[in-house]
Amino acid sequence: MNAKKLAGEAATKFVENNMVVGLGTGSTVYYTLLKLSQRIKEEGLNIRGVSTSLTTTKLAEELEIPLISINVVSSIDLTIDGADKVDTHYRGIKGGGGALFYEKIVAKASKKNIWVVDSSKMTEHLGSQLLPIEVLPFGFTHVQGRLKELEIKSRLRTKDGKVFKTDSGNFILDAQLNRNQDIHTLEQVLDGLTGVLEHGIFTNVVDTIIMANEEEIEIINTRL
Amino acid sequence: MNAKKLAGEAATKFVENNMVVGLGTGSTVYYTLLKLSQRIKEEGLNIRGVSTSLTTTKLAEELEIPLISINVVSSIDLTIDGADKVDTHYRGIKGGGGALFYEKIVAKASKKNIWVVDSSKMTEHLGSQLLPIEVLPFGFTHVQGRLKELEIKSRLRTKDGKVFKTDSGNFILDAQLNRNQDIHTLEQVLDGLTGVLEHGIFTNVVDTIIMANEEEIEIINTRL
Repeated sequence: MNAKKLAGEAATKFVENNMVVGLGTGSTVYYTLLKLSQRIKEEGLNIRGVSTSLTTTKLAEELEIPLISINVVSSIDLTIDGADKVDTHYRGIKGGGGALFYEKIVAKASKKNIWVVDSSKMTEHLGSQLLPIEVLPFGFTHVQGRLKELEIKSRLRTKDGKVFKTDSGNFILDAQLNRNQDIHTLEQVLDGLTGVLEHGIFTNVVDTIIMANEEEIEIINTRL
Repeated sequence: MNAKKLAGEAATKFVENNMVVGLGTGSTVYYTLLKLSQRIKEEGLNIRGVSTSLTTTKLAEELEIPLISINVVSSIDLTIDGADKVDTHYRGIKGGGGALFYEKIVAKASKKNIWVVDSSKMTEHLGSQLLPIEVLPFGFTHVQGRLKELEIKSRLRTKDGKVFKTDSGNFILDAQLNRNQDIHTLEQVLDGLTGVLEHGIFTNVVDTIIMANEEEIEIINTRL
């Protein structure tokens, strides 16, 4: 069976009646949304979803999953999202699809976070990965200059020959991390770097990882 | 004489031929721009300006001050900007006009920063001031919630009965700092707070402060 489908569907078992559910973005969460829609229609499951992207909003509307604005809920019970890479400390890199900023805001507002991944996403080191960094168009070249001083090469993301824009109209720099990059230090540097809006390092976020290959599912409780 | 005019005009003496000059935003820098325009027309001063706001861009164009995009200059020689409050450690709070994000990017890309202020802007403590915090519209209520946990009340800025939007389309929270607020700690918290785009605390930025009252000008070198 499709690993993404296995993982994505399995996560819906954690969704209970009357929950506010954060809905991630991507090709694995896609299956979560399909299954949630099915549960709503067949079981009468009552939930309100908080979307993390325009893509997910559109899909949820098509699937008739009721949505609510993040600004009117005091907290989110459970968020189900994907990840591009997850290391052995359960730190993730996200943002391959460009939705990292909204995804991080939703994750931080959630009582519990589940990541759904196929087994190819697990890695020993986040160093040597591409890290998406969301930047303001104004002055982004100076952020690149500052990264260069830190010996981090970065490239402005393009799509179909044009500069890629996030849902909030900003740019993405894809930064090539060094093999021995200290992730914690990098996170602090990026947090304090003027012009950086958000970055794709997610530490101390995920509570449960649902990992699948073609045959089986593994559920990892990261807080144990 | 008008203190703002005195300070604003005095700063132009630091501008030399062929410089790239960061142009701040506000009622004191307004006089800097008028005077620069005069020097360009009368002395043939050759500069290129980097604007920090749509308001300044418009004014510079009217005054025929040539502008250049921040993304095509490797650095800015000198930036002249105002400040809402400056404490005895030469730390400033900016953003009363809402241009703090572009202003901070320009400041950080500048070799030298001059602030022009009237003497009413000097204060002993930045605590007990209103601190502007630029936030993404998506999830801003959760930033307010997090600030509340830190015992900092904040209010969404409005203008003419509508939510105020910055030049990049974001919101401003005006946060009421506590009298004994540790500014350094607050800066670090805000830098790491998801949903915060930038804040109005400017530390270790200004090299020279030009302060005026109605009668005289004082020039303070902050690096001494």
